[in-house]
Amino acid sequence: MTPERFREAGRQTIDWIARYLEQIERYPVLARVAPGDIRRRLPAHPPEQGESFDAILRDLDDVILPGVTHWQSPNFFAYFPGNASPPAMLGDLVSSGLGVQGMLWATSPACTELETHVLDWLVDMLALPDRFKSSGQGGGVIQDTASSASLCALLAARERATAFRTNDTGVDRVLTAYTSTQAHSSLEKAAGIAGIGRRHVRAIEVDAGYAMRPDALERALEEDRRAGHTPFFVCATVGTTSSTAIDPVPAVAELCRRYGLWLHVDAAHAGSAALCPELRWIHAGVEHADSYCFNPHKWMLTNFDCDCFYVADRAALISTLSVTPEYLRNPATESGAVFDYRDWHIPLGRRFRALKLWFVIRHYGVEGLRAHIRRHVALAQEFASWVQGDDRFELAASAPLNLVCFRLVAGDAATQRLMDDLNASGRLYLTHTRLAGRLVLRLAIGGTYTERRHVQAAWQLIRTRA
Amino acid sequence: MTPERFREAGRQTIDWIARYLEQIERYPVLARVAPGDIRRRLPAHPPEQGESFDAILRDLDDVILPGVTHWQSPNFFAYFPGNASPPAMLGDLVSSGLGVQGMLWATSPACTELETHVLDWLVDMLALPDRFKSSGQGGGVIQDTASSASLCALLAARERATAFRTNDTGVDRVLTAYTSTQAHSSLEKAAGIAGIGRRHVRAIEVDAGYAMRPDALERALEEDRRAGHTPFFVCATVGTTSSTAIDPVPAVAELCRRYGLWLHVDAAHAGSAALCPELRWIHAGVEHADSYCFNPHKWMLTNFDCDCFYVADRAALISTLSVTPEYLRNPATESGAVFDYRDWHIPLGRRFRALKLWFVIRHYGVEGLRAHIRRHVALAQEFASWVQGDDRFELAASAPLNLVCFRLVAGDAATQRLMDDLNASGRLYLTHTRLAGRLVLRLAIGGTYTERRHVQAAWQLIRTRA
Repeated sequence: MTPERFREAGRQTIDWIARYLEQIERYPVLARVAPGDIRRRLPAHPPEQGESFDAILRDLDDVILPGVTHWQSPNFFAYFPGNASPPAMLGDLVSSGLGVQGMLWATSPACTELETHVLDWLVDMLALPDRFKSSGQGGGVIQDTASSASLCALLAARERATAFRTNDTGVDRVLTAYTSTQAHSSLEKAAGIAGIGRRHVRAIEVDAGYAMRPDALERALEEDRRAGHTPFFVCATVGTTSSTAIDPVPAVAELCRRYGLWLHVDAAHAGSAALCPELRWIHAGVEHADSYCFNPHKWMLTNFDCDCFYVADRAALISTLSVTPEYLRNPATESGAVFDYRDWHIPLGRRFRALKLWFVIRHYGVEGLRAHIRRHVALAQEFASWVQGDDRFELAASAPLNLVCFRLVAGDAATQRLMDDLNASGRLYLTHTRLAGRLVLRLAIGGTYTERRHVQAAWQLIRTRA
Repeated sequence: MTPERFREAGRQTIDWIARYLEQIERYPVLARVAPGDIRRRLPAHPPEQGESFDAILRDLDDVILPGVTHWQSPNFFAYFPGNASPPAMLGDLVSSGLGVQGMLWATSPACTELETHVLDWLVDMLALPDRFKSSGQGGGVIQDTASSASLCALLAARERATAFRTNDTGVDRVLTAYTSTQAHSSLEKAAGIAGIGRRHVRAIEVDAGYAMRPDALERALEEDRRAGHTPFFVCATVGTTSSTAIDPVPAVAELCRRYGLWLHVDAAHAGSAALCPELRWIHAGVEHADSYCFNPHKWMLTNFDCDCFYVADRAALISTLSVTPEYLRNPATESGAVFDYRDWHIPLGRRFRALKLWFVIRHYGVEGLRAHIRRHVALAQEFASWVQGDDRFELAASAPLNLVCFRLVAGDAATQRLMDDLNASGRLYLTHTRLAGRLVLRLAIGGTYTERRHVQAAWQLIRTRA
């Protein structure tokens, strides 16, 4: 495809997406297909000869869209949002167009330097501690997901706790990690991957607000010490997946200091809220963390994948993940004057992901991004007040940000029926969790195009179907 | 940004990329900047108010491009290619536009089903064994990189070798892995991550063609057994990074069978060659592999990231990586009728990457893709013959595919000077390795737009500067 034909096909594709976004409310939010339905529409064999671009675009409508759950719909309230935006899409498109590989500074210096720079910007934008900035001993890097960021934090912690020997010798003792019962499943997965063992992740009890109990953490630490184990890592959550609970990071940090543990703070979804000064209380204590992550691909208008991962001591991370074969040697690396981001995460190759972040921050400006967060939080507060005003419903947890957890007073069976009925309607999509053993509906408000009328309509539908 | 403004900004972006591709030969291939040069052009603080899209695009030219090494230039011969193409860019753009999260089948069925389908197509396109198809016990998944694929293979192997207990209990014995001295550094990195220990990766000696020696492998296996260790994993390479050496997979597979080891075949770069029936000899023995990967983002015109990872027994992989918290439970998953790809890799979230592969395969057709591979291989063969015809040069390894390893007979210092001089010219970019202790230049031909005239000009420049 010549650049000239690319111009034409590119315009068609842009138009297709614009039309999709214009019409997105017409589709049922949750795809209405059974397993195998999409595959049955696809030919058994790939074409021997190339096909026209028109045919490909046509199949997007005919074959793909029926199987798409519309994450960008303003009526998508499930999971946490994955709110993309036009400038993010275009920044990512430029990344595809340049097609550079940013594994080393030397393989495309702008890819590394823009990333370092924008991640330093974000430290200021979220009022994160200066120790996460590249100007000191720390620094930030874009990871694909918070799962990968947690794994990298766990690995660096494992190494620091074993004098950087485990990487070489393998796990040779019982290393114990701590997180709350409400923490993300990625921690358990990471402990399995890292050879520590999922059973050595202690799920610490939570208080009535679903936040980690420091006294329970301390008890677990003492028990493990007595048993001769090596406690090494705590993951505190700022905004749990189930209910946006916020662990008491200052108290947890104090225990980490006393026991010599690595503190990772996972603010995957909630972190973006700290763009707004009035919401920065969520980050109390983060100044003591060894590492921290949040996902602009959840709630900062940047399309997946974009997790921002920060460490206070980049040397610990790099020592953990660096390997330098001959074919990657180069003068810039050997001078020590540059970051080679392949040493900051699992993969070697990497895409120019900073471009989309840069496009988003510049297009919206910090104020524009704050306005999005404020709108979502205000809508969630309003929705929560509606729930509270209806006797048939109850809030299942406090709603400090943009997630409202609620249920029918009538109990789990009724709540489940309501959810199934709502999702089958096609008019909205929400998901569930369990809190204190009871089924709970989660309504997360974070769509780029979600307005008050969408939340109102959702509540209207919920009340009618209840 | 409304859909209407997105139309306009999108067209500008498409035009920018088209112009970039049209003018790409005007830029020095290797960026000419010193550490910090790009950051100095960026403002210290992010903008409070949004900026115009024109200003952002202008800075692509003024700030970013000077720091870009042009991986898409037809004069880029370094590392292995990362050959993007217009249909891949546009497929990925659609993925950004849809903005779906494919962690579960249920979160967007088309994202999972198109991926399964296209990866089954690729089994046929490369004549890989049917056991890698989803219709049997196996299946394919898109990973970000071959590094991540190798890690997943190593983890599944670790679990299979320990009755799927290590994930839970942690590493509790010496597990030993095997790969050649020429294998990719990702294996060493993966062994550190997995808690096995880098020192337990045995670097097996190679023969004169830089391929793994089965007798040396067997000796190492016997030694480890005698020492009471648990051999569990062999990674054979089809096309090493240094020299495209191809390990004797049939003999290695026979040892894996006898010793009960997981065989992973890493064909990250070379695998795409098997699109052409006359090059399928590279895959001899792959029918015995437990897992296999190749990267369409290297040599199949699909922009990063896109590694295709196959397993013969998907249950082993899924058992290794699956964790199901309440908030991810859903009827489709519990029915067992669907794949949930979050259980096939490290991250939870995932992008709709199958779209770009689908666009590429449909736009070019299988024949079109073969034509690209054949052109690159023919050009490399021709280049190798030119090297052989000049007394000052010698080939440093056989060149079975699209990589030519060569050096000046005058020795390492002269070869290094030549490389530095060539790369400083801006007219091409190539990288080096060491083979048998000697410095070697690597010229990899795989650019989407690389034609005979570019390779001729490269040789002309090399001869002149030598």
